[in-house]
Amino acid sequence: MEAEQLHVAGVERLEAGITVVRGIRASGVHAGLKKKRRDLTLIVSDVPAVAVGTFTTNQVKAAPVLVTQERVRGEGKGRARAIVCNSGNANACTGPQGEADARAMAAAVARGLGIAEDEVLVASTGVIGLHMDMDKVRAGIEAALRELSTSREAAAAAAEGIMTTDTVPKEVAVRFRIHGYECRLAGIAKGSGMIHPNMATMLAFLVTDCAVAREELDRAWREVVGKTFNQVSVDGDTSTNDMALLLANGLAGNPPLAAGDPELAVFKEVLEYGARELARLIARDGEGASRLVEVQVEGAGSDEDARRIARSIVRSNLVKAAIFGEDANWGRIICAAGYAGVPFRPEGVDIYLGDVQVCRQGAALPFDEEAASEVLRRPEVRIRVVLAEGQGSGVAWGCDLTYDYVKINASYRT
Amino acid sequence: MEAEQLHVAGVERLEAGITVVRGIRASGVHAGLKKKRRDLTLIVSDVPAVAVGTFTTNQVKAAPVLVTQERVRGEGKGRARAIVCNSGNANACTGPQGEADARAMAAAVARGLGIAEDEVLVASTGVIGLHMDMDKVRAGIEAALRELSTSREAAAAAAEGIMTTDTVPKEVAVRFRIHGYECRLAGIAKGSGMIHPNMATMLAFLVTDCAVAREELDRAWREVVGKTFNQVSVDGDTSTNDMALLLANGLAGNPPLAAGDPELAVFKEVLEYGARELARLIARDGEGASRLVEVQVEGAGSDEDARRIARSIVRSNLVKAAIFGEDANWGRIICAAGYAGVPFRPEGVDIYLGDVQVCRQGAALPFDEEAASEVLRRPEVRIRVVLAEGQGSGVAWGCDLTYDYVKINASYRT
Repeated sequence: MEAEQLHVAGVERLEAGITVVRGIRASGVHAGLKKKRRDLTLIVSDVPAVAVGTFTTNQVKAAPVLVTQERVRGEGKGRARAIVCNSGNANACTGPQGEADARAMAAAVARGLGIAEDEVLVASTGVIGLHMDMDKVRAGIEAALRELSTSREAAAAAAEGIMTTDTVPKEVAVRFRIHGYECRLAGIAKGSGMIHPNMATMLAFLVTDCAVAREELDRAWREVVGKTFNQVSVDGDTSTNDMALLLANGLAGNPPLAAGDPELAVFKEVLEYGARELARLIARDGEGASRLVEVQVEGAGSDEDARRIARSIVRSNLVKAAIFGEDANWGRIICAAGYAGVPFRPEGVDIYLGDVQVCRQGAALPFDEEAASEVLRRPEVRIRVVLAEGQGSGVAWGCDLTYDYVKINASYRT
Repeated sequence: MEAEQLHVAGVERLEAGITVVRGIRASGVHAGLKKKRRDLTLIVSDVPAVAVGTFTTNQVKAAPVLVTQERVRGEGKGRARAIVCNSGNANACTGPQGEADARAMAAAVARGLGIAEDEVLVASTGVIGLHMDMDKVRAGIEAALRELSTSREAAAAAAEGIMTTDTVPKEVAVRFRIHGYECRLAGIAKGSGMIHPNMATMLAFLVTDCAVAREELDRAWREVVGKTFNQVSVDGDTSTNDMALLLANGLAGNPPLAAGDPELAVFKEVLEYGARELARLIARDGEGASRLVEVQVEGAGSDEDARRIARSIVRSNLVKAAIFGEDANWGRIICAAGYAGVPFRPEGVDIYLGDVQVCRQGAALPFDEEAASEVLRRPEVRIRVVLAEGQGSGVAWGCDLTYDYVKINASYRT
């Protein structure tokens, strides 16, 4: 799987957590916002890091999104030392009090570390419309500060502290070389309801010790997020709290990657690998999901066209339900492609379930139903749609629609 | 309910079918495309009628859509005598053979009635990618021609013949006066999976004996469809076969309504009433639905903004699942509003479940959970979202997301 995903020579997947990156300490504690599980995570860089981020496009932005967005994108900003994130309460639709609470979370971390408040980025996920229990949060931050460590356990605890309906923590770590210097990239993420990731916020925090100029890091991150996290969390369907942050602290010691550096391409590929692995983990762990669905679209007029069509297919409830039912219903696939808002000639469409071609030139094709159903029974279902419009290609990730999805979401609060 | 929906004086809801309209005969038979139930419907006007229609925006259009669209919109076209519609096979993704079959269906009806082929409109709904069994279809058309009648039973049979996963036939009939002439409007429709009505095609066939100039009829129909059927079947999510046709045969004898006629407004309101009632029946009968959900948005920058926001809320799986779970989770409602792609100030948003206000100025509000849940237990759930942007308003209809939805769609073909 990884091998297939990773094309860069000399890049190695590590069985490690976020603390494998030089100068990164982390912790995850139980502050009491959730009944039992860890609900507060802290990630700290020993030195100031270049910070870039992408944020929800939702008209309704949670308080921590507003605070962090300003600290990452504001004039003369874009450097950070720490990320603090709680789960159990989204701190969204909480008015001025909510924004004060978000700032207070950052301030508490800043005090504990002896750094500037605006060097601390804050994120939240959980129920909308509840004010934060700041006594619990402050106590949790105290504990998280005490437990900061570079250990594998601390990294794992940090991955757990941001989970909501996730069933497993989501981590990635890789080692790679830039101009001969060994660099590390690692990250954690939390998942989302796989149909519309509204309330089930998507959060991703990646860190690297590779030195990269701010402008290049920002460009690379936007590009990578567009190909990975946004292909799970469809643009325009984003939650009030979605956030994907990337910190680069430069402790690998390499000369900072700047515009025109040929090895920027290597870094970008590594970054895309890390983000894609987290995106796939999120899709695989979709609420109630029993299968990961990967939709590959080729031959589109542009990469963006291909990505839009792939998203449209992967979010179609009828496609998702058919996969849950192991029903090779390719008609639903071409139909979902058809309403993606991208023009194409239906008579040019070929569709494959795994290796089984089920549609040729937009028309039915006799195929082995049993072989097709076998493909749909796999834990990872691959759908390939080939258009005759051009060279554009793109991938989207999702999961099947199950009884459990309904069960989970019929009573999220209660 | 009706009273609330109907504002025009002198308009009367009739417990009748499509044959209440002067000069309209109908039938519905079992041709054998479906195992047991009726699967072929014929609607005939004794005299040529002005024909207007709206069609799927899907890139992948079924053969009957291509044929009928040309006959309704083509140069010098737009008059029809008959509509033939089969269920059980969508005749979509069937290539040139499919188009030949669609034309052959119309030709068989034309021969039987002794009219021109292009006076016959054809529609299909069912599974994609299967060629039509034309022997069964031709025999079914013969039977349907024999059984044409103005009886109530024939009208009911016609309503049944277009059903797929619908659990009940959908009919509406009203009587109204135009310039003192008594006119009738009646229609039938079939429903759709309520999340994305992809394969579960939406079909609506309305007929009236009111005389209306073609241009005015076309304008009125597009406007009304935009406010009604398109608020259930979201634009861009349309199936390969969606079609909404309106025939006006003028047999009421009124002077044809033309541009500037003050009573055009009356006709439009009657038309909107009829279409809205069918749209509500479709939503209420959504696959696996246990509740009708009506989302009213007010105070938007424009009516189109309001309609977009209402659609975004009504199609959010998390909102739908929360309603199924009787969970007053207003956070999901404001979140879905937020990603509708319409700018608005969150701090200006009020949200009501029935009469219970659950959100004021975009923030939490102490409310009676029990009273709110009681609202969500009703067969018709009303959600009202009031923005502070302007005077725009709009309504969308949907249903809750249930286990049965997944069950039905996990095995539609098999």
